[in-house]
Amino acid sequence: MSQQAVNGVQSRGKVLTLDNMNPNVKQVYYAVPRSHSPTGGADREGAERVSHYFLHLFLKRYSAAQIFTDPCLNLPQGVKKPFTEVIKANIGDAHAMGQKPITFLRQVLALCSYPELLEDTKFPEDAKKRARRILEACGGHSIGAYSASQGIECIRQDVARYIEKRDGGISSNPDNIYLSTGASDAIVTMLKLLVCGEGRDRTGVMISIPQYPLYSAALADLGAVQINYYLDEDKCWGLDVAELKRSLNAARQHCNPRVLCIINPGNPTGQVQSRQCIEDVIRFAKEEHLFLMADEVYQDNVYAEGCEFHSFKKVLFEMGPEYSSTVEMASFHSTSKCYMGECGFRGGYMEIINMDPEVKAQLTKLVSVRLCPPVPGQALLDLVVNPPQPDEPSYATFMKERTAVLAALAEKAKITEQIFNTVPGITCNPVQGAMYTFPRITLPQKAIDKAKAEGQAPDMLYCMKLLEEEGICLVPGSGFGQREGTFHFRMTILPPTEKLKIVLQKISAFHLRFTQEFS
Amino acid sequence: MSQQAVNGVQSRGKVLTLDNMNPNVKQVYYAVPRSHSPTGGADREGAERVSHYFLHLFLKRYSAAQIFTDPCLNLPQGVKKPFTEVIKANIGDAHAMGQKPITFLRQVLALCSYPELLEDTKFPEDAKKRARRILEACGGHSIGAYSASQGIECIRQDVARYIEKRDGGISSNPDNIYLSTGASDAIVTMLKLLVCGEGRDRTGVMISIPQYPLYSAALADLGAVQINYYLDEDKCWGLDVAELKRSLNAARQHCNPRVLCIINPGNPTGQVQSRQCIEDVIRFAKEEHLFLMADEVYQDNVYAEGCEFHSFKKVLFEMGPEYSSTVEMASFHSTSKCYMGECGFRGGYMEIINMDPEVKAQLTKLVSVRLCPPVPGQALLDLVVNPPQPDEPSYATFMKERTAVLAALAEKAKITEQIFNTVPGITCNPVQGAMYTFPRITLPQKAIDKAKAEGQAPDMLYCMKLLEEEGICLVPGSGFGQREGTFHFRMTILPPTEKLKIVLQKISAFHLRFTQEFS
Repeated sequence: MSQQAVNGVQSRGKVLTLDNMNPNVKQVYYAVPRSHSPTGGADREGAERVSHYFLHLFLKRYSAAQIFTDPCLNLPQGVKKPFTEVIKANIGDAHAMGQKPITFLRQVLALCSYPELLEDTKFPEDAKKRARRILEACGGHSIGAYSASQGIECIRQDVARYIEKRDGGISSNPDNIYLSTGASDAIVTMLKLLVCGEGRDRTGVMISIPQYPLYSAALADLGAVQINYYLDEDKCWGLDVAELKRSLNAARQHCNPRVLCIINPGNPTGQVQSRQCIEDVIRFAKEEHLFLMADEVYQDNVYAEGCEFHSFKKVLFEMGPEYSSTVEMASFHSTSKCYMGECGFRGGYMEIINMDPEVKAQLTKLVSVRLCPPVPGQALLDLVVNPPQPDEPSYATFMKERTAVLAALAEKAKITEQIFNTVPGITCNPVQGAMYTFPRITLPQKAIDKAKAEGQAPDMLYCMKLLEEEGICLVPGSGFGQREGTFHFRMTILPPTEKLKIVLQKISAFHLRFTQEFS
Repeated sequence: MSQQAVNGVQSRGKVLTLDNMNPNVKQVYYAVPRSHSPTGGADREGAERVSHYFLHLFLKRYSAAQIFTDPCLNLPQGVKKPFTEVIKANIGDAHAMGQKPITFLRQVLALCSYPELLEDTKFPEDAKKRARRILEACGGHSIGAYSASQGIECIRQDVARYIEKRDGGISSNPDNIYLSTGASDAIVTMLKLLVCGEGRDRTGVMISIPQYPLYSAALADLGAVQINYYLDEDKCWGLDVAELKRSLNAARQHCNPRVLCIINPGNPTGQVQSRQCIEDVIRFAKEEHLFLMADEVYQDNVYAEGCEFHSFKKVLFEMGPEYSSTVEMASFHSTSKCYMGECGFRGGYMEIINMDPEVKAQLTKLVSVRLCPPVPGQALLDLVVNPPQPDEPSYATFMKERTAVLAALAEKAKITEQIFNTVPGITCNPVQGAMYTFPRITLPQKAIDKAKAEGQAPDMLYCMKLLEEEGICLVPGSGFGQREGTFHFRMTILPPTEKLKIVLQKISAFHLRFTQEFS
């Protein structure tokens, strides 16, 4: 007899169980691996402990993508490992990889947090000026007050001016700017607005494969239909309109495709789209009556020679009024990437274009439910879009720090491609932009069979073994989606250059070992 | 012929329109007023301008509650008004009403933002110690790194210790603490987990009327069924289990009630629940197999003599293992209220109790989609739950500032009740806690008729006129829900004492004028 029955209480079980919870939430990260023991034949205590950590996560029904992107990958203290530290090349978290914050940004944030410092002569005048302006725009001159739900007005004005400058003068209206809690928040909000219908009328959303898992997660949560279009690995992860058409036509058999999501520069694939490609995509969106969502959070992360960032908005407007007055789109940006890497502040914005005014009112209403985006993140965004000018005292240092970060990333992008392409069985496209490489790995059939027998994705087996043996944490390609029968991993290029070289060499050696072991 | 047709392009209208957007989002704030001209017979330019501002909002389909809680209520510059400033007594935004941030909190935030200040002798050692500890817990020692999705571990430990101390030693597990982007975020996440089923099986959620509009908004968004239970205005907005039963039984005819939400201390009603009442509610939740959501963000805002805050968790555990081991609940807290009032940082946490471990894994997965709560808000929360201790240098100042804020609120709570209750036609319950008064107003039949003829809630007419004539912004009771035929408004008690007195006198005089005008 159960304890509850003994106590005379009817045993009805939990109110909330896996069986009666929101079914959409359960579908988030559809590629949930079965629970299993990844320790396998590992014989070292450290490796076992690492594996147990992952087993623990697995049993909690984490998916591949999530385990490896979870920022909390910390090993229990005192664990013996066959390596001295875990290198988290799994997530685009620049500061965690040792990148120093930009001085000017942090000075202004400190001034905003504790305005008594405005009297301190240690702080440059331009930092103080920015802080005073932000504080004046806040209720009660405090970043502790709520802001307008859409974001502080003068910051939205600064964002609009920044966009105008970026896009060669094409006008931007601050009313169309919504500040957000990182880009993720705005992307989910925009998707939420767009989803409706049931059965065959259910909204379908086109996303690239490989994709960033936020999209699949949000679509599952909203009960929308995910429509996959494949990037062409052989053409440097290029986007081909013929593939968009194939994917769309197939989807029209079972849902109502209404949205096309593009990530440029690409995550996890690191490609930078050409102007021509963007024009083709816009034409396709117009012809097929699709709402365009342009995830452009890596817009300052372009490294490859001959590559240049073209915003979807600029291309749209250069295509003339037939397009610029009709194609509905939203563009997303963030303070988490580029040279700043300020992920923890959760700053970002979206710009909407050609949105129906009645829908826009609904959007404004929707964002007001959560009151406002974090004000420190808004302040940070203001500094990103309104950085020190050449005649200001912080300019030289700011430019030096900014350039150093971007130059190092460009160098690391090149080193990564070069080293991986020397390894038999690893093929790596150029890292044109963003912060990731997504090389293809050839896995021996025996490894594939072993993984399948264990109910595991083969690239998960590979990444798990790498983690156990070398303490290097990557994300298996299966977490992002990939063409059937191909295998990849995502690695950030964020570790400091010297450490990155060691990481690349260790992965290369591991790959050879892995191949031999299963040959 | 349209421009599109001229251009040879098929005119298909917008991709995204009010007719084909997410229908749940449209239902958010169900009490959407019809568009109308609120200027009426106003004859002063200023008043007209104010009204036009609201008309503008109305036309955007804002609801009563939203207009008045929108933090961006700023009048266009250069507008002549019959008053010198708009007093925003509509939203619980302490800093916007002039409350100064607590020095210690802001010192630590400045140190975390710009760690170079750790060398500065102006900052006290305990502030530096806290900042160093927080920075050590951050990736790369920077608050710009992502944290674990559930929140920084050492901060969750501090929260657990804080809860244990608050609840007389009842243990709290850091694994059950989830840091959040303000309390709103956690409340919406928890509701999302709980909602499932279709038609008569759809999840029903019990909320108090009057309610805080986040709840109705979130339920509409999730497509859940809102179940209203009424607080008893005659018993100081008390909660009666007989009313809970009535409401639940009625709801069982058309949905599957699974959740009971309680706000204590109450918003907008300001009551503080007795220990006995909380025990009754817990017993009811257990008997009726309901998940309890305890919104306790005003837990430090208790003013009335004889009133005391009892956490739902403490009462639950004091009721013995029959309850403490079975009743599933979540409790919510925030950095936005109490003595801190740091709304802009969007800090908060929830503690879950007795949640099914499989569901908990799903919760952890769900929060990881948004990566992490804002780290500055997490840091702020850490200081709230781990404030200066008696032997530390900041203790005296911290306590002085904290006590001053809470004592002023207690005084203002009393003044508000006293002044309103001298006015014929205004009846005001004691403001036992939280930051609001929700007085009942008697409106002349002619005013009610006029409002109804204009398709407007009568208390909206009242609040609109008050705003136009006096520049005082309140929220009409219809924005929160109230018993049919009764009228109220919500006013914060946050304006500085001397200004609050003037506000109260102006409202009193307005009420008499309004009554005469329509008699």
